[in-house]
Amino acid sequence: MADKLIGACIIGQSGGPTSVINSSAYGAISAALAAEEITQVLGADHGITGVLGDKLYDMGLEDPAELALLKNTPSSELGSCRYKLADPDVDDTDYKTILEMFKKHNVRYFFYNGGNDSMDTCDKISRFMAKSGWECRVMGIPKTIDNDLVGTDHCPGFASAAKYIATSCMEVSCDSRVYPTGQVTIMEIMGRHAGWLAGSAAVGSRFGAGPDLVYLPELDFDMDKFLADVETVYKAKGNCLVAVSEGVHFADGTFVSEAKASSTDGFGHAQLGGLASRLADAVKAKLDVKTRAIELSLLQRCGAHLASKADVDEAELAGRIAVESAIAGETGKMVAFERAEENGEYVCKTKLIPLTAVANAEKKVPLEWITPEGNFVTDEFIDYVLPLIQGAPERPTECSLPRYAKLRKIKA
Amino acid sequence: MADKLIGACIIGQSGGPTSVINSSAYGAISAALAAEEITQVLGADHGITGVLGDKLYDMGLEDPAELALLKNTPSSELGSCRYKLADPDVDDTDYKTILEMFKKHNVRYFFYNGGNDSMDTCDKISRFMAKSGWECRVMGIPKTIDNDLVGTDHCPGFASAAKYIATSCMEVSCDSRVYPTGQVTIMEIMGRHAGWLAGSAAVGSRFGAGPDLVYLPELDFDMDKFLADVETVYKAKGNCLVAVSEGVHFADGTFVSEAKASSTDGFGHAQLGGLASRLADAVKAKLDVKTRAIELSLLQRCGAHLASKADVDEAELAGRIAVESAIAGETGKMVAFERAEENGEYVCKTKLIPLTAVANAEKKVPLEWITPEGNFVTDEFIDYVLPLIQGAPERPTECSLPRYAKLRKIKA
Repeated sequence: MADKLIGACIIGQSGGPTSVINSSAYGAISAALAAEEITQVLGADHGITGVLGDKLYDMGLEDPAELALLKNTPSSELGSCRYKLADPDVDDTDYKTILEMFKKHNVRYFFYNGGNDSMDTCDKISRFMAKSGWECRVMGIPKTIDNDLVGTDHCPGFASAAKYIATSCMEVSCDSRVYPTGQVTIMEIMGRHAGWLAGSAAVGSRFGAGPDLVYLPELDFDMDKFLADVETVYKAKGNCLVAVSEGVHFADGTFVSEAKASSTDGFGHAQLGGLASRLADAVKAKLDVKTRAIELSLLQRCGAHLASKADVDEAELAGRIAVESAIAGETGKMVAFERAEENGEYVCKTKLIPLTAVANAEKKVPLEWITPEGNFVTDEFIDYVLPLIQGAPERPTECSLPRYAKLRKIKA
Repeated sequence: MADKLIGACIIGQSGGPTSVINSSAYGAISAALAAEEITQVLGADHGITGVLGDKLYDMGLEDPAELALLKNTPSSELGSCRYKLADPDVDDTDYKTILEMFKKHNVRYFFYNGGNDSMDTCDKISRFMAKSGWECRVMGIPKTIDNDLVGTDHCPGFASAAKYIATSCMEVSCDSRVYPTGQVTIMEIMGRHAGWLAGSAAVGSRFGAGPDLVYLPELDFDMDKFLADVETVYKAKGNCLVAVSEGVHFADGTFVSEAKASSTDGFGHAQLGGLASRLADAVKAKLDVKTRAIELSLLQRCGAHLASKADVDEAELAGRIAVESAIAGETGKMVAFERAEENGEYVCKTKLIPLTAVANAEKKVPLEWITPEGNFVTDEFIDYVLPLIQGAPERPTECSLPRYAKLRKIKA
């Protein structure tokens, strides 16, 4: 057991929000408020930028009932940022400011909730504090709908987005085959480099409603192959539903969404708009069928009304474990998940991994979880996702609409 | 009491699907299966086109448990169509075929579930049968997310779409203000001529999360005024969320979504893509801020996982009342809703109105329910919507994903 370290803590949220990042905040805040070692619990406004600008809120002054509603509130309630800290060997200005703020508020614990960029931020701060001689324990809390952090079985936020995507694809699959004349429907799903979310679109297909074709960014995208796939399905079923990752790219690395119009890429004329519209236009030009492009956009990362209970609970757990581990002496680590089974049931266990192992790395969908045809995911993929999306959390409502946390945000 | 009329019935679904049109089908089918006057319950494949093509399914051969799941199944499970019958005085070919099919299957009851076009179809068939001397009672069951049928307080399907839209706007409102740099987010909502759905985006604003500005097609759209509105909100709050009906149009009647690029309409260059993208581009060009365009597309009309219990129950009621009324001797009518209050609680009562009163007419949002500034709805509008979106129906699931009806569809 490490020496008792007494002082304030800061909790910050970073990167793209999710449906459950506030559940991690709640896990960390409630554990910190309960810890005798922690003298004050500070929430950073817009992540590290709130630390740099001394915009810190005293979480101890919040109504506990409102804090508990964070579990039901999508997006980053404290505000997020995409601020990238410089290499401290090149420019340590920001780090000196951070140290100053840590000293001002006697901050001895720093918890940062985000993706791989945020773990890099965490790691840099951790090293600078160590070098400066300011004793401070730094812990990362994972978060990303993209599910692309290495060293963890899955990431908080992924499952709720996956459940939203799978459910929405099931619904659209019902809707898009309603008329006697067929339709090719293209659904664009987030995930620039990893296809975890796009693959999740396929989960409902096991239960009879979902996409016919799924394209992940792990493989090169071939427009001719894509059009041939669509034609085959359309001829057989009179309809076709496609789920496609926003990150699909041609063999030369060009994103399909950004490809310049040319006669060779399947786009007959100048293209604006998103990937789904582009692909729908290419299908229309080739097959002369009715098309519809749907982009799930922000909806998929804030659809908290469809959150997975497993995800909400695990996100909270990650926040709590970060605090408890730091109090026990850990630093420079991220909380990670291990998948286990107890009595034949899925259980989620936690472990700690070094921040350095996570920072700036990406975990992609294993190629063997994509079908040999390259246009769907395998049963292994669906078996991986299913336990994560189980259960519906209790969702407090007001007049049948979601009731979100209303924080007072009183400056410390 | 009219004479007992013994024979088969046909139930058909028509027009754009909704989250609850299958609940009306269930109400009608289950009432018809229970009625001793009705000898066979036929479901028309793809509405009137299934009657014309003698593609009729025997609903009596379905598993009752699967039929009950129709209440949980979005879209038109029997298939829909947008087939417009000719004026019988000009071309009665289709009507003769329909009569032939009615005779073949001894159809004495025809129930058609749809919007105002479908009520026109209903009305024409009703008149032709009367003229032909084939005794057949014809009843319309209302349905439309657009909520634009006259003679009824509201339409089955509207409330569930409204709830989906309101909830999604609340969630996006959380997500779109997450970064220190602001964003203008434009959400495009269905409703070509009536603004009931776009207005519903504002319901969450009463509870602290929702759009800042709402534009309905009941008023002419003024691009300069729109840009000035956005600028005012953005300057005051650092963010702006706009909900806009797909049907907004300039004073000359041109849809904003179809306006040709010109120097006067706010679009500086050639535009493709939907309305939301066009408006986002116009905002970006004028204010040089980060923008995001979101189109709710099909999601809003098939989002059954967020259905309103009131809507599901009322849709079922409308189907049942249509059958019971026809058995009691009614014909040439549509089931309509009246809003009432019992012990201070909203209750929905039914009445019958002539199909002729509904066919091809449209009910728009009263202008006094739009604010004088023309960029939001009034409290009266929100008070109108709120009772309709109450409650969450029981939703059978399988592995935490929706479990839809699986019909056998055995041809009669």
